[in-house]
Amino acid sequence: MSRLDSFIARMEAQRDCLNFLKDKIDRLPGPLIEVGLGNGRTYDHLRTLFPGRDIYVFERKVAAHPDCIPPDNRLFLGEARASIQLAARQLGATAALIHTDLGTGDHAANMAMGRWLGPALDMLAAPGSYILANQALDVARWQRLPEPPDVPKDRYFLYRVR
Amino acid sequence: MSRLDSFIARMEAQRDCLNFLKDKIDRLPGPLIEVGLGNGRTYDHLRTLFPGRDIYVFERKVAAHPDCIPPDNRLFLGEARASIQLAARQLGATAALIHTDLGTGDHAANMAMGRWLGPALDMLAAPGSYILANQALDVARWQRLPEPPDVPKDRYFLYRVR
Repeated sequence: MSRLDSFIARMEAQRDCLNFLKDKIDRLPGPLIEVGLGNGRTYDHLRTLFPGRDIYVFERKVAAHPDCIPPDNRLFLGEARASIQLAARQLGATAALIHTDLGTGDHAANMAMGRWLGPALDMLAAPGSYILANQALDVARWQRLPEPPDVPKDRYFLYRVR
Repeated sequence: MSRLDSFIARMEAQRDCLNFLKDKIDRLPGPLIEVGLGNGRTYDHLRTLFPGRDIYVFERKVAAHPDCIPPDNRLFLGEARASIQLAARQLGATAALIHTDLGTGDHAANMAMGRWLGPALDMLAAPGSYILANQALDVARWQRLPEPPDVPKDRYFLYRVR
């Protein structure tokens, strides 16, 4: 399997998991959170799937397509670790959905990041909310859910917050 | 359709077109050419699909995954317009396959680029070779081919060189 095959499978898993969560998230109050804007494609998917819903975005440095940049008052600019602390003080544990797609091709660095990222995001997650992540995150009150139908195993990681 | 949906559809079309061309390219001599290395995923797909085959790559500035960087003697660094001229003098019209995925979200800029890119790539293309492009390219001796089965129309552009 080439890196192209693997990337397509990961993007499909991301999209299919978000679509699978649509009805569940519609039944929950609270904002959505996108960690890592990147080129803005997933942000665009979120705002298409959940029109009118508040979406807060964390991004180190915006380099997205101009059409896919969130309004200033929904954007936490800077290093995620510090911005998440700031957002937690501002928003509390209110988010209905957190999607995170941070990281690089460096597996060890991603694993190290996961150790602080899970507990940090937990400060933003409402009881009963959902977390969708591109890597496994280990948080005591998060229960891992099985992949939705037709989504291959371990491409994306879905949790429900107790 | 969100930008995420659209991106996945484009990547699938790219991959499916390359796989469709596999048998045809195997029957042709000459190197393969990848215009725009990006993160190196498509380069990785090409070398997986065509093991042992010479693959020349054009890239303005390498920012690919370290595992997906071609050897120095297969890499034309710098602006594509100048490097393609240089490559044409070195390689002649010998390529069996040219894949190009240059461009940005700026449609007008991409269209302007297409006007010089097609004729430039034509200098590298062997008679009977194939061109696969992320945008329409208008070159007199290139015949547009229909999309392979299950590939949606106009996501990717496939040509055979007369």
